[in-house]
Amino acid sequence: MDFRSRPRHRNAGSYHHGELRQALLAAAAELLAGGGSDAVGMREIARRASVSHAAPYRHYANREALLADLAAIGFEQLAARFAGLPAATTPERRLVEMARSYVDFAREQPQLWRLMFGNTLDKTQHPALLDASRLVLANLRATVEALGVPAPATHQTLAAWAFAHGVARLVLDQRLDAHLDAPLDADALVQEAAWIFLRGLRHT
Amino acid sequence: MDFRSRPRHRNAGSYHHGELRQALLAAAAELLAGGGSDAVGMREIARRASVSHAAPYRHYANREALLADLAAIGFEQLAARFAGLPAATTPERRLVEMARSYVDFAREQPQLWRLMFGNTLDKTQHPALLDASRLVLANLRATVEALGVPAPATHQTLAAWAFAHGVARLVLDQRLDAHLDAPLDADALVQEAAWIFLRGLRHT
Repeated sequence: MDFRSRPRHRNAGSYHHGELRQALLAAAAELLAGGGSDAVGMREIARRASVSHAAPYRHYANREALLADLAAIGFEQLAARFAGLPAATTPERRLVEMARSYVDFAREQPQLWRLMFGNTLDKTQHPALLDASRLVLANLRATVEALGVPAPATHQTLAAWAFAHGVARLVLDQRLDAHLDAPLDADALVQEAAWIFLRGLRHT
Repeated sequence: MDFRSRPRHRNAGSYHHGELRQALLAAAAELLAGGGSDAVGMREIARRASVSHAAPYRHYANREALLADLAAIGFEQLAARFAGLPAATTPERRLVEMARSYVDFAREQPQLWRLMFGNTLDKTQHPALLDASRLVLANLRATVEALGVPAPATHQTLAAWAFAHGVARLVLDQRLDAHLDAPLDADALVQEAAWIFLRGLRHT
């Protein structure tokens, strides 16, 4: 690598408060999207943000803390999507829309989705991440309870999440078509799966 | 590492036909169980099987071919489990038993399960693996069709798999308890989720 071709380091102190964090997160998100969490390294993040190797450690104790921040932002994005869904006429439609929204999120940002819902991070070690993921679960639980399932609808809420998660996994698996006679129609599958779940819940 | 402490290499030719493959697979399965597919390396496999570094290549073109063989055997094991389930009184009970059996498999051999259902391998490049995984899907499809869903019950079969897969993912996630008021009762969740699915399928 030719060091002369690299942009000169910006002094981390020249960033305004919050700007450095944003620059680090943007670089980390790019690396994540390109190669998954294994591709997210502190040195490469510093290089992309044009700061010294030490600068990322002003904000993050280590790489895992930065990944946890990325994942927490992912959960906040997902919660914002749920909040931004058009007002549904019925809780049934709302749950179908949430399932679709969840699967869309996984398709658009598969590596972020894997980071959020995979085994890479121990959420209990990262309070902000835990809070953000709890918010998403609370949102789902409220929708399940609005369907008439008595609170706390823990198993039904987890089952709803499991179902959407499994469907997202299927939809992301480009190789599934090898098992089918025709290419997978992802939207039709999400729709069908969500309605099976709903009907099953209604006839408890 | 002290080379003197290692067992002397067995000449790969001293293995009877088939024995070498078994020894390689056993070593690979150990490595997989311990550290996931990233931990499966040809040199370490050779070391554990007490053969030369070149010996594994008598059976496998490369590491991926060996992983594909491991995954294919995993699908055969899963198909054998389904075949060995006690004769169910109804197709409904059979589907619940299959779901439980799938989740148990994932709990007992999480790394093998991840290899089989993750993105590590391109099944289309490994005919034996593709056949073995198709057999499992065919088995599930037959059970869904026995429930009265008109053939080919593609979306319903995929939804059934997605549901079981998502539940297995939840059950494997040791950190989920941080989101719940009480520890997750995995068996109760599997049971509940399977019946939600069944009821939903019945009321199509």
